[in-house]
Amino acid sequence: MLELNKDYLQVLVDRIDAGQDTELRNSLVDLHATDVAEILDRLKFDQANYLFRLLENEVKADVLIELDEEQRSSLLHAMTAEEIAEEVLENLDSDDAADVMSELPDTKAEEVIGLLEDPEQASDIRDLLNYPEGTAGALMAKELVKVQGEWTVTRAIREIRRQAEELHQVYTVYVVDENDCLTGRLSLKHLLLAAESTRSKIKDLQKEDGIISILGQESADKATKLMERYDLVALPVVDKENCLLGRITIDDAVDAIIEDAERDYQLASGISEDVESSDSVWTLTRARLPWLLIGLVGGLGGAYIIGAFDIHENARMALFIPLIAAMGGNVGVQSAAIVVQGLASSSLGTGGILSRLSKELGVGLINGFICALLILGSSMVLGFGTSLSITVSIALLCVIVFAALFGTFVPLMLDRYKIDPALATGPFITTVNDIIGLMIYFAVGSMISAYLA
Amino acid sequence: MLELNKDYLQVLVDRIDAGQDTELRNSLVDLHATDVAEILDRLKFDQANYLFRLLENEVKADVLIELDEEQRSSLLHAMTAEEIAEEVLENLDSDDAADVMSELPDTKAEEVIGLLEDPEQASDIRDLLNYPEGTAGALMAKELVKVQGEWTVTRAIREIRRQAEELHQVYTVYVVDENDCLTGRLSLKHLLLAAESTRSKIKDLQKEDGIISILGQESADKATKLMERYDLVALPVVDKENCLLGRITIDDAVDAIIEDAERDYQLASGISEDVESSDSVWTLTRARLPWLLIGLVGGLGGAYIIGAFDIHENARMALFIPLIAAMGGNVGVQSAAIVVQGLASSSLGTGGILSRLSKELGVGLINGFICALLILGSSMVLGFGTSLSITVSIALLCVIVFAALFGTFVPLMLDRYKIDPALATGPFITTVNDIIGLMIYFAVGSMISAYLA
Repeated sequence: MLELNKDYLQVLVDRIDAGQDTELRNSLVDLHATDVAEILDRLKFDQANYLFRLLENEVKADVLIELDEEQRSSLLHAMTAEEIAEEVLENLDSDDAADVMSELPDTKAEEVIGLLEDPEQASDIRDLLNYPEGTAGALMAKELVKVQGEWTVTRAIREIRRQAEELHQVYTVYVVDENDCLTGRLSLKHLLLAAESTRSKIKDLQKEDGIISILGQESADKATKLMERYDLVALPVVDKENCLLGRITIDDAVDAIIEDAERDYQLASGISEDVESSDSVWTLTRARLPWLLIGLVGGLGGAYIIGAFDIHENARMALFIPLIAAMGGNVGVQSAAIVVQGLASSSLGTGGILSRLSKELGVGLINGFICALLILGSSMVLGFGTSLSITVSIALLCVIVFAALFGTFVPLMLDRYKIDPALATGPFITTVNDIIGLMIYFAVGSMISAYLA
Repeated sequence: MLELNKDYLQVLVDRIDAGQDTELRNSLVDLHATDVAEILDRLKFDQANYLFRLLENEVKADVLIELDEEQRSSLLHAMTAEEIAEEVLENLDSDDAADVMSELPDTKAEEVIGLLEDPEQASDIRDLLNYPEGTAGALMAKELVKVQGEWTVTRAIREIRRQAEELHQVYTVYVVDENDCLTGRLSLKHLLLAAESTRSKIKDLQKEDGIISILGQESADKATKLMERYDLVALPVVDKENCLLGRITIDDAVDAIIEDAERDYQLASGISEDVESSDSVWTLTRARLPWLLIGLVGGLGGAYIIGAFDIHENARMALFIPLIAAMGGNVGVQSAAIVVQGLASSSLGTGGILSRLSKELGVGLINGFICALLILGSSMVLGFGTSLSITVSIALLCVIVFAALFGTFVPLMLDRYKIDPALATGPFITTVNDIIGLMIYFAVGSMISAYLA
């Protein structure tokens, strides 16, 4: 793996400034496209553009795909439609080509596609652009190797060779009938072993276990889960008649899996846009402000609740406000995180919402009693007084149980109404639990002081 | 994908109780091993064990690997060493076999390995068991297909066929020299195209771009990152002399990536053990208690800070305690999450700790000023009074800046000292920021009331 450091980048920048094209080409020629992309991402646009134009066309295409979206968009913007068609699209698989097209303005994308020499490539890209983001179809590529079950091994191998020449990488050979409908698959192992019996028919060699496929309009999420669950390196995508449309490869699935995990993580941490630490201060600020604003509103709400209670007469109640607010938030986040993760990995089990809530009630009661007893004991020992200690411990038990139930309920409901349950993990649960926690605390406080009075 | 529901499981359970072995075998025969494993995971041990013993040996091995650790351990416990050796290990790849062995008590594992008929398999498993968890070696399998660069295509294809017969799946063919040192690789595509030129030597066909490999003792994390970065379906593992030890396949890498992401997510949500929502109430309680205890201690600390300030004289200060505490926690979690994610994806950029902190200072100042101005305006309008409004807004600015810096600093320092930075995301940052936030709030409050007095 390339170790990028400032000195290395400085050498490149100096050479770019001096226009030493040969030296620049030589220093990049042995690098993997991913590494070249990382270099371009670190350069200013003018420098990146200069370096990019020195690359060979095939490398250009691979590098473009690996770039950060911002830099890619700038580079594409600086290219004419002809350049994009000839230098980039001709060297990309259909899925990557469609991704690039979807980032261009519609009119420019149409112009580029119209310039493609191969009408099949053009129609493949148009096809793929029709699948909305988040569907299995949007994740697939049209390129694949297929043979008919009726063919002999000799004919099939000839056909496979021809088809393979045009592909970057062959994962699996699909077996179809005369209507292009999927009937099975051949692995590399099968093919190697098959080559000995050149007269047998392909259908006698194909894998017998039910082949796993997905419909183009099903979710990308379902596709990656299938691949993960059944350890697939490629997943065929079919239409309702089971005819082969394309295939999703594991490298794209891995990217999608990681992207999803990062998104859930950011939502749980109160970050509302997909950001990286290398993004600009302004992007980072914007991604973080929404949660903070929700927190502000929650804090004002908290101020009202405390104000509504006669805090002057019971100023000592203020001491445990941070504890009550923090514990409500903590428990709620824990509960929501477990539900979100369970939904994401489909491991929630067979029970419905009620059975989940009753289990959560159990967890909440146990944790609540433990925490309540601990706080009762310690605040008595630390001299916070009997009535305050009792108030805090009763309120804490109630807050923990409520927060556990609420944190479980909200993501389950969101999921039932097809809203992303991860939205419930960050600001929403924490802020609501803060406020409800305070209400419980002061309600308990009023009751106890009324009782003691 | 199998849709498991209660009715389906009940039918199986009824058949198990009635001892209808033939019907049970028939209902399982078409299922993928992963699906059978999911069924067994949902059954009680006795039922699972009954069903497991009806499976054919090859299926048994595959199912065992896919089971939850708890159920697998129970089933293994119920088997004799002979059964494990003959029915399970003989049908597993070396990496899965080593995983199973590592879950057995040492003496039983030794007994099982001693019973294996193939001495090479036994030594492969012993080899793999020497790699500590978390290394690339622990993730690899010994099974692979390799040919020598000096061989002709004809000879190589003959050898590949022989080697492929013993493998579950062939990903890549590795090219080695006479000392087994790695010199290149052949993809399925190359092989298919090569078969036409049977007299050429393998070394003339192999991929020319530098082959990416990893040392056995390097981290599993580095291995999965390499595979993700360079879109590899298999990564060769070598020793210091570059001799081929084994290979890591993408399905195992995907499992490792998902496991890591889930761990980070749970740590950020304050869950200290790897739990699933289907785990028992007690396991779930135990995984969540540690953060709650830290929260309790933090809450008591908060009570002391508020108590040290003369809250009776300034009871209105209590109103904004929840706001200050919540905002400190929120900002800290956001900052820490961005660092943790940047470290995990190696996208932190070239700058050191100081440049990260100065960027974070910028983000903190912008967010801080926006929030401070908003709270100043709204609390004035809502009638909370000038001095309290000014106190809150100054304190809020300080708290946000401090929390942003602290949340960035702690995970960076942990990482520098080789401690998992994700530990900083959950309870620690939130609790410390709560307390420091309160200290800042009351310090500002004291200063302003002294100034006004």
